[in-house]
Amino acid sequence: MRLKVHANLGYHIDTPSTLILNIHALRTQHQAVLEESFTINPYIRGEELISAHGENRFIRIESPAETDLTMAYEATVDNSFRFVDCKDFIETSVAQLDTSVFTYLYPSRYCQSDKLFRLANNKFGSIPNPFEQVLALTDWIYNNIEYLSGSTDSGTSACDTVLERAGVCRDFAHLGIAFCRALTIPARYFTGYAYQLNPPDFHACFEAYLGGEWILFDATKLAPLNGLVKIATGRDAADTAVASIYGQVNCTNIQASCELVETEFTPFFYVPGAFQGISYL
Amino acid sequence: MRLKVHANLGYHIDTPSTLILNIHALRTQHQAVLEESFTINPYIRGEELISAHGENRFIRIESPAETDLTMAYEATVDNSFRFVDCKDFIETSVAQLDTSVFTYLYPSRYCQSDKLFRLANNKFGSIPNPFEQVLALTDWIYNNIEYLSGSTDSGTSACDTVLERAGVCRDFAHLGIAFCRALTIPARYFTGYAYQLNPPDFHACFEAYLGGEWILFDATKLAPLNGLVKIATGRDAADTAVASIYGQVNCTNIQASCELVETEFTPFFYVPGAFQGISYL
Amino acid sequence: MRLKVHANLGYHIDTPSTLILNIHALRTQHQAVLEESFTINPYIRGEELISAHGENRFIRIESPAETDLTMAYEATVDNSFRFVDCKDFIETSVAQLDTSVFTYLYPSRYCQSDKLFRLANNKFGSIPNPFEQVLALTDWIYNNIEYLSGSTDSGTSACDTVLERAGVCRDFAHLGIAFCRALTIPARYFTGYAYQLNPPDFHACFEAYLGGEWILFDATKLAPLNGLVKIATGRDAADTAVASIYGQVNCTNIQASCELVETEFTPFFYVPGAFQGISYL
Amino acid sequence: MRLKVHANLGYHIDTPSTLILNIHALRTQHQAVLEESFTINPYIRGEELISAHGENRFIRIESPAETDLTMAYEATVDNSFRFVDCKDFIETSVAQLDTSVFTYLYPSRYCQSDKLFRLANNKFGSIPNPFEQVLALTDWIYNNIEYLSGSTDSGTSACDTVLERAGVCRDFAHLGIAFCRALTIPARYFTGYAYQLNPPDFHACFEAYLGGEWILFDATKLAPLNGLVKIATGRDAADTAVASIYGQVNCTNIQASCELVETEFTPFFYVPGAFQGISYL
Repeated sequence: MRLKVHANLGYHIDTPSTLILNIHALRTQHQAVLEESFTINPYIRGEELISAHGENRFIRIESPAETDLTMAYEATVDNSFRFVDCKDFIETSVAQLDTSVFTYLYPSRYCQSDKLFRLANNKFGSIPNPFEQVLALTDWIYNNIEYLSGSTDSGTSACDTVLERAGVCRDFAHLGIAFCRALTIPARYFTGYAYQLNPPDFHACFEAYLGGEWILFDATKLAPLNGLVKIATGRDAADTAVASIYGQVNCTNIQASCELVETEFTPFFYVPGAFQGISYL
Repeated sequence: MRLKVHANLGYHIDTPSTLILNIHALRTQHQAVLEESFTINPYIRGEELISAHGENRFIRIESPAETDLTMAYEATVDNSFRFVDCKDFIETSVAQLDTSVFTYLYPSRYCQSDKLFRLANNKFGSIPNPFEQVLALTDWIYNNIEYLSGSTDSGTSACDTVLERAGVCRDFAHLGIAFCRALTIPARYFTGYAYQLNPPDFHACFEAYLGGEWILFDATKLAPLNGLVKIATGRDAADTAVASIYGQVNCTNIQASCELVETEFTPFFYVPGAFQGISYL
Repeated sequence: MRLKVHANLGYHIDTPSTLILNIHALRTQHQAVLEESFTINPYIRGEELISAHGENRFIRIESPAETDLTMAYEATVDNSFRFVDCKDFIETSVAQLDTSVFTYLYPSRYCQSDKLFRLANNKFGSIPNPFEQVLALTDWIYNNIEYLSGSTDSGTSACDTVLERAGVCRDFAHLGIAFCRALTIPARYFTGYAYQLNPPDFHACFEAYLGGEWILFDATKLAPLNGLVKIATGRDAADTAVASIYGQVNCTNIQASCELVETEFTPFFYVPGAFQGISYL
Repeated sequence: MRLKVHANLGYHIDTPSTLILNIHALRTQHQAVLEESFTINPYIRGEELISAHGENRFIRIESPAETDLTMAYEATVDNSFRFVDCKDFIETSVAQLDTSVFTYLYPSRYCQSDKLFRLANNKFGSIPNPFEQVLALTDWIYNNIEYLSGSTDSGTSACDTVLERAGVCRDFAHLGIAFCRALTIPARYFTGYAYQLNPPDFHACFEAYLGGEWILFDATKLAPLNGLVKIATGRDAADTAVASIYGQVNCTNIQASCELVETEFTPFFYVPGAFQGISYL
């Protein structure tokens, strides 16, 4: 599927600062970036970096003080996902996990799975098929957490969300991840551009490691699962923030959007009983 | 330096369980494991694994139900550290950091550096030499947190320790790491065996990334900095737990010790004004 | 109903200390203390105090250092409760509340009702009869929180219990109170002796202010609602601790029990659809 | 001292709601309200209530839905404080406390003194004179917590403030109270109007019970201690919120100010070594 993505960021820089931006479409075997442009105004060179495991691709910018920076990113991307038949999935056994996914089993800053062990296991522990488990927990989040813009901030964690019952896509993803890990299912944070997300914005959802594949889930149900462009994956938002900022900086603008280049698109969402997972690897 | 380490673990296994143990001395370019033995009684095969970046080496064991497992590990290790002159260190700039260390800048489960930004920067932000900064923060921890066995548990984080002012080596390390990251200094958790630790036990301290090196710090001041055998490093204890357990299991015994094989040893601790760091890489 | 209650407490006193004990049966218009004895060994005079509103009656003891104190309390009590028909209760209106109960609407140390507003209102907000609301929330607690001795401590609050899903009678009561207040129903903590509580111990439950009466609820369902002897009420356990201790003291023993003096007793528990509340005022 | 106070509040009421306002100057033996007016526009009758112990005087308003309410309060008040010589104060003994102040020793929603026991005692426990203790802890708060408008919200507690090191007058007061209680000094929240507070607003500080008197302290040092008009006291802000709201309501305006009617005023602040406390009882 061919999608065109845009991002516009603005910052007022008070002191000499370093910005690490996670807004570039990831280049993977299954996601081709056909063309892209990234401009910083006034001109500063941005250094492109790839994280150690290739889970994200980020831009490092060093800005002088007293600058109004605007940045524009634009890319045309061919993403390719595939459907995975999850009908016969059985419980993930730690005994068979590859070492590279262990890190996604452990609690992280915003996904305190250790604290939510009993809640996750009481609610979802008895469901035998792990794909259904994750579907059930995303439904629980969808039904129990109110999507409420502005209700949370960058310090909000899965535990806060269980208590306060409101959040945005980031919080929905963190809670999904925490529940998965509490069920011994490796899970990771996914940020990207999302077609038909309304209002347009950066989006966050999560991937669960089931049957040896990273299957995508989105507890917000706000965007079709087949219209995503991956920016990055990580343990949680701490690893994949749109912008990590070192210095005195105020954000003045943040916008993202995603359009379809092709003319046909059938929105795909999970439906009960279908056992058809979607994977973006 | 040649050291001999021992560990004995006992678990009562109720249900079929997987145990991931982090007790083996790491094999690195600078730490040679001369000989080692690991036995599980009753006999179960343990699978040795190395994490993706080689930061730890762990054993995965699958146990049947209703078993009393005991495990014994013994190794003779040549560790080699080196002293690093930290006199002219200047502030770590994110702009020059290697991508492999970014992960150690971000907040993690037990090291919520984002929450402690103001505290860290108010207390230590104005110290120009980052080695002195980290020395100052370890001293602050040593002076403000009471070392109190049994005062904390596996859910305790750096934020809890700032509030409750008591903890064990794990908590001292977590707080040190959180302070470093809040100061934009990459920092990671270090677990190992420690010579002259009294009473003998597994030990935890931390490494800060200064001048391109991982320099070791220990806010507990309970063991000489030159008598350590590295087991693992990670973002925090979530990555490097002595035992991660999946199943119904009770720990019945946990012991660790470390002896000197050579006859001479001059305990090394940091002293103010010396600017001599120690690195185990 | 005539009940006989016993309590035995033991403390090792290190430094000169003050102990405030909440173990005496309250004397109210509806609870008559027929006879009682309280002994401290070695002999120290205990001063009996009544709180400002008469919600508790406590004993203040000043102990010298290096003392092993044991205390024994015994009383025969006629408690009298009455059944309240709750069928036609309508939503509590703050506009009609007496000022003396306002304090029980506000969040307190262990009952952070402000944090649980959305959870309480989503789950129970649409139930029109407030007696049924409180029954529904006690059932929710009973079904979702595991009663697990030793799982919590004196710092545990209602928010912790929502997250960690385990606790003891104190935690069940705190969560019940927090939910009520989040629903704009005044609620308070109730400590007492409980007949047929097994194993025997001090008990905690809560009262909700409905239809102008304090109606008793117990989310643990561990003891009949008609076999209680009231010790104290308060905003939460902070006001009514069995022992508040000022000094270096270790508890060496804590026991409580409750026996029936009369020969007949029909255990009473709430049943769905009965609309029969019980009030101890 | 004669002061004139004003408050203006505005609310948009969505659903039928009850508002409890704490904005009236308290009438006490030592604070005379010479004249006052309170108007609600559009006209709704407000019911004046006095709390059980007379610690606050509040107005209860029932508003219909879809209303834009504005309220104006104006009063001329003679406050009278007195100076208390604190030179010879000795440690507060729980053994001599009056039962009416016990409630101010216990932890409350925003003042978790139980969590801060070690911090308070390590920092201030060895100061023999309790007046100096409280001065020391207010200085510690003043020096360690940044006064930062908008940095906190109605959920922020003393524990959050210890961690995050920023807050407003309410947070400074909560932390002062929590420290006092952790030192076994009864302490309570004080809200009022403050002359020379800049910018003008409602103010919060706290009283500590020393030598049998409620002595006033203000860790913000933003207003003279002798220019206050008391609105209410309570365990913390939960008891004394400017507005407690039951219903769907948005605040559209909140203003308060305080002017001197007399022509002379010598601002009074505590100075080290003076041992002169101020009491508003």
